[in-house]
Amino acid sequence: MKIKIINPNTTWSMTRTIEQAARKAVSDDVKIEAVSPTMGPVSIESHSDEALAAVGVMDEVSKGEVDGCDGYVLACFGDPGLHAAQELAQEPVVGIAQAAFHVATLVGRSFAIVTTLGRTLGRAQDLVDEYGFTRQCVAYRACEVPVLGLDEHPDAAYTSLLAECRATLEQCDADSIVLGCAGMAGMCERLEDELHVPVIDGVAAAAALVEGLVRIGARTSKRREFANPGAKEMVGLLSGFSRP
Amino acid sequence: MKIKIINPNTTWSMTRTIEQAARKAVSDDVKIEAVSPTMGPVSIESHSDEALAAVGVMDEVSKGEVDGCDGYVLACFGDPGLHAAQELAQEPVVGIAQAAFHVATLVGRSFAIVTTLGRTLGRAQDLVDEYGFTRQCVAYRACEVPVLGLDEHPDAAYTSLLAECRATLEQCDADSIVLGCAGMAGMCERLEDELHVPVIDGVAAAAALVEGLVRIGARTSKRREFANPGAKEMVGLLSGFSRP
Amino acid sequence: MKIKIINPNTTWSMTRTIEQAARKAVSDDVKIEAVSPTMGPVSIESHSDEALAAVGVMDEVSKGEVDGCDGYVLACFGDPGLHAAQELAQEPVVGIAQAAFHVATLVGRSFAIVTTLGRTLGRAQDLVDEYGFTRQCVAYRACEVPVLGLDEHPDAAYTSLLAECRATLEQCDADSIVLGCAGMAGMCERLEDELHVPVIDGVAAAAALVEGLVRIGARTSKRREFANPGAKEMVGLLSGFSRP
Amino acid sequence: MKIKIINPNTTWSMTRTIEQAARKAVSDDVKIEAVSPTMGPVSIESHSDEALAAVGVMDEVSKGEVDGCDGYVLACFGDPGLHAAQELAQEPVVGIAQAAFHVATLVGRSFAIVTTLGRTLGRAQDLVDEYGFTRQCVAYRACEVPVLGLDEHPDAAYTSLLAECRATLEQCDADSIVLGCAGMAGMCERLEDELHVPVIDGVAAAAALVEGLVRIGARTSKRREFANPGAKEMVGLLSGFSRP
Amino acid sequence: MKIKIINPNTTWSMTRTIEQAARKAVSDDVKIEAVSPTMGPVSIESHSDEALAAVGVMDEVSKGEVDGCDGYVLACFGDPGLHAAQELAQEPVVGIAQAAFHVATLVGRSFAIVTTLGRTLGRAQDLVDEYGFTRQCVAYRACEVPVLGLDEHPDAAYTSLLAECRATLEQCDADSIVLGCAGMAGMCERLEDELHVPVIDGVAAAAALVEGLVRIGARTSKRREFANPGAKEMVGLLSGFSRP
Amino acid sequence: MKIKIINPNTTWSMTRTIEQAARKAVSDDVKIEAVSPTMGPVSIESHSDEALAAVGVMDEVSKGEVDGCDGYVLACFGDPGLHAAQELAQEPVVGIAQAAFHVATLVGRSFAIVTTLGRTLGRAQDLVDEYGFTRQCVAYRACEVPVLGLDEHPDAAYTSLLAECRATLEQCDADSIVLGCAGMAGMCERLEDELHVPVIDGVAAAAALVEGLVRIGARTSKRREFANPGAKEMVGLLSGFSRP
Repeated sequence: MKIKIINPNTTWSMTRTIEQAARKAVSDDVKIEAVSPTMGPVSIESHSDEALAAVGVMDEVSKGEVDGCDGYVLACFGDPGLHAAQELAQEPVVGIAQAAFHVATLVGRSFAIVTTLGRTLGRAQDLVDEYGFTRQCVAYRACEVPVLGLDEHPDAAYTSLLAECRATLEQCDADSIVLGCAGMAGMCERLEDELHVPVIDGVAAAAALVEGLVRIGARTSKRREFANPGAKEMVGLLSGFSRP
Repeated sequence: MKIKIINPNTTWSMTRTIEQAARKAVSDDVKIEAVSPTMGPVSIESHSDEALAAVGVMDEVSKGEVDGCDGYVLACFGDPGLHAAQELAQEPVVGIAQAAFHVATLVGRSFAIVTTLGRTLGRAQDLVDEYGFTRQCVAYRACEVPVLGLDEHPDAAYTSLLAECRATLEQCDADSIVLGCAGMAGMCERLEDELHVPVIDGVAAAAALVEGLVRIGARTSKRREFANPGAKEMVGLLSGFSRP
Repeated sequence: MKIKIINPNTTWSMTRTIEQAARKAVSDDVKIEAVSPTMGPVSIESHSDEALAAVGVMDEVSKGEVDGCDGYVLACFGDPGLHAAQELAQEPVVGIAQAAFHVATLVGRSFAIVTTLGRTLGRAQDLVDEYGFTRQCVAYRACEVPVLGLDEHPDAAYTSLLAECRATLEQCDADSIVLGCAGMAGMCERLEDELHVPVIDGVAAAAALVEGLVRIGARTSKRREFANPGAKEMVGLLSGFSRP
Repeated sequence: MKIKIINPNTTWSMTRTIEQAARKAVSDDVKIEAVSPTMGPVSIESHSDEALAAVGVMDEVSKGEVDGCDGYVLACFGDPGLHAAQELAQEPVVGIAQAAFHVATLVGRSFAIVTTLGRTLGRAQDLVDEYGFTRQCVAYRACEVPVLGLDEHPDAAYTSLLAECRATLEQCDADSIVLGCAGMAGMCERLEDELHVPVIDGVAAAAALVEGLVRIGARTSKRREFANPGAKEMVGLLSGFSRP
Repeated sequence: MKIKIINPNTTWSMTRTIEQAARKAVSDDVKIEAVSPTMGPVSIESHSDEALAAVGVMDEVSKGEVDGCDGYVLACFGDPGLHAAQELAQEPVVGIAQAAFHVATLVGRSFAIVTTLGRTLGRAQDLVDEYGFTRQCVAYRACEVPVLGLDEHPDAAYTSLLAECRATLEQCDADSIVLGCAGMAGMCERLEDELHVPVIDGVAAAAALVEGLVRIGARTSKRREFANPGAKEMVGLLSGFSRP
Repeated sequence: MKIKIINPNTTWSMTRTIEQAARKAVSDDVKIEAVSPTMGPVSIESHSDEALAAVGVMDEVSKGEVDGCDGYVLACFGDPGLHAAQELAQEPVVGIAQAAFHVATLVGRSFAIVTTLGRTLGRAQDLVDEYGFTRQCVAYRACEVPVLGLDEHPDAAYTSLLAECRATLEQCDADSIVLGCAGMAGMCERLEDELHVPVIDGVAAAAALVEGLVRIGARTSKRREFANPGAKEMVGLLSGFSRP
């Protein structure tokens, strides 16, 4: 089984962190392939970044289909391009926000999201609501560390993140913490050790879910909405995305 | 006052239809400028098409800001790139699905959506739910005419659309019909004459709403989520979208 | 185009303030006619006041239909008599709470209501929920200034209102403030200048929306619920409201 | 214990039917006093009728407070003026739609409403949603018999009502039927005998609930929203409703 | 009329308190019979306790059917075994959480739950949501007194409970307080005297509701879900629960 | 890794079917141990059966904790005793309804449940709502084959089930089918081959999810609601469940 992990931003050092988290989350017989797209934002911190990142995600999924991948993880907490990816792939695709919410609701009644920048919490709320977890998500929090700050100043970032998690748990009854950025994957274990509640990294969650889906043969329904999109001409800069 | 109407697909004949519908919807002192992006899909009929169309929308909004536009309409029923556009523009941006739902709920308790292809109804449902109109939207219907079919075979398309609208009204108590594609703008009046309920074209609705928002000085809140996104490097094919 | 603005309370000084706010919100070719009913409460601060005010609203809408008005604004934040008015009028009717919520959700994800007396917030909540904006309204606040206090002691009222708005923004992430009383219309611009987020006055919002609806020919659906009510005898004090 | 049953319409023959239904629903030591207001519509079949009926309801509740009533039933399925009545009375007030929904959800998971005219179902839906029973109400149906038709042509009306109830049960899984008009009170038992599911008459339901509330001393909270409204001047036709 | 009050825990001193509260809540011609099961937990403070208590509840309902009871109250705030009891009984069954929520929403817009141990609030939330009162329940609070502490140290327990109620009312706008344990029944009146808002004891509420349901002949629908379960063999320890 | 599969009914032939489905769903290095409790119903088809089955589930989970199991699957579609099991186990516990809904929402927007007896659909609805999938579950269907009929007359049962699935897909737009009984596990693959949409067996889904949870170290939060319940005395028949 080969699972492709797509880090939708183009910062490969983060892709490496993500790869390690995914590898630990799956059985020994699963091959993990982690990539960044060849195009798009170096980090994703706004709706504009999300929209541009989705293009690269589509590109990587299309390549993965040629390569015979068995499933895909989209490793950005905004799940950019998820629905498009589900159309393009025959095999299951799971976003890390989606995966983290599913796991959180399997281990408790309620969870709190702790993310990087507060401005991205609107997107998190849209995803929570779309996936059905409105009632279970009891807090939306941000430590206000930029995404690349996790990579560049990991100690300071960890300190801020831990403080925000602690404050969150003091102020609400969440059963668990969902980390709101793929770049936090490497900090998950330490946080859990200090906080004594489940701390959920979406990268590990998504990799484990995709392995499970593949093992039971659960693939995206092609009945209607997620059927492969038909032929379509694209023009200008995006003409390479034309579907013959 | 200058309102820029962005048809997210690249089929200019459709852009002309849209322009006419918008012009009729506003006061004489409002200037309407209707464009298609230089890049992207010739029609939008899937999540993949939506994702690619969002890029062109962002490009046109950015140009509009330089040109001093006072407001923007996104004239595709999936409202592609709406949140990104709200970040990039200082002035109000309204999508035609959004506008149509707002108008429908001002003229009745309930509405039904009648669109082109059934596979796009998932996106419509996500928008209805996100905007808050879950309870008011009582039917999701499709006449299964492709988007470009509206342009190329208007008579056959009209016949199919009318039949689907009639069936919808017979099978549910909707107070009004919301047309699910900008390409149906030119058929709205005829449909209303035959159906004897309000038939709402999102293009006209959005143009009228943007004029109103501009007149009362209501602009997108820049407090947090929709603040202008900061500097960001984009790589590869999308490097032209880097924000300095 | 003639839009009738009905201030459901019988305090004409407030009606004049409302008229000015409405006039600024519409195109030059729109005629604004602002009135108070000949019957009912001098201010509206309870469910009892709302119920009595609805009678006068119905009376003014019926007169407006004879006069050939093109649309109506109900300028009290409880939208008293809105559904009755929609039955009685052929042309669009918009309440200012309704209008303010619609505009608030076009300029941001979330809004907070700041009103006069806390006891009226139950009504505000019912309207938010009925119109579909449960998720978007993130705070219900009151400055505890009575309605006529806005008119009689405007400076003290403004100070209290500003303080409540500031406290609201500090304590929640609302993208905008919705003012919860027509009598606050004249304070909107100053508040926005000080608060740096959109502050929405329902009077301006409603006037602009009604102009838009009229321009695109969107009238209340007469399919079922809002069809003109048939003949009906009324007895006693209300016999003048009999419908022949 | 004295419970006042207010039939919000002014047709006293219907008030007598309602009185009988209420009397059967309470203990022997409860005194039932059934009245129609001195003003308002002869039957209630539209939002306009509801709004006018609320005035008479308020009048009768105010008189009841002077008379020392222990509780009130509002015997029209639109619960007109309920919130105003809760402000004006120290003692509990229950509407028959409200009561019917409460009883229906105590005897099963789901219920269907079968009412007189389809145009009143919008009001029913608003009440269902406001009271919290959105999930439990699985069908909204009308037999299209006018309210006074129940009184004037009871046999024909019964036949239509029974047919509509049967069709409802065939087409959905409702555990019970809620009758959507006080004028149907006298038909409840026969319908239940024929349909073999609980058929709930709101008049009996409300009378029983009010008796229970009085017995356990449960009165409307006067903490905030339903506190007695303060002094207020009313003008014109409604000056008699001024509160000193 | 004979109403059987089942205290699902096996502490008979608590059963006596519950009996007194129920007796005060009904008419003189109603006979109250209060029991504890012969099996199960001495107090109910976890999901595990709830699950075990449900068995004894079923046993007592089955005995009650043989004895010709007219209705049942389940006097534990988790309503353990309610749906099973509704299947087994021909006559109405009401849980005290259910009853308290119904009464609270008849006397105000909103309520707060104040219970014993915080760990039981998850169950309370599930019940609130299932019964339809999500919007109305605005606070979930616990005084952290164990259930048997109410019985063994009533003064200390009362002090803690009163303090928690006061804090709750200061921190939210609840119209009333719902007591979250049958063991608090004896403290209800004193609390109401001190707090000046309705304080609702589910035991009294349920007894009054069952009397009302019996009086109007409202019995559990046997149409589908709550039909008497057919024959079934049980094995091992539970073989006595086999249904022939 | 050892996963214990608890079939809450006491029919061991069904337990064997379940065991096979679970074994296929996990990696080779996972040990599957499938059991039925020593007590309880031979099949689960009512709320009463569910309540009694929960006792045996608790017993088996407690034994599993002594045996050092790494995770648990509750293999009955009503997820009986799930919350109690989560309290008693340190390791993850997943119910098959829960698992099936999670998997269905990972492979499509919407799903339909097709179960055995219609009377169990109320329980299914409660679970769907509690877990957050109200919007995604678009149909509740039953083939009216009793649970043991799946085991005793598999060919006839399959024919009925297939027909009901086909009718469901014709009448709604569900992206996938969720099978509503563990006893259908052996029919899943054949159904999927004939229906051309994902058909989800909760046993396989739950086994795969538990393996994933164990692999990423995600255990039930012990923060509050699901903390191990403290000491408690049980009396009578259930005294063996006392917690020292």
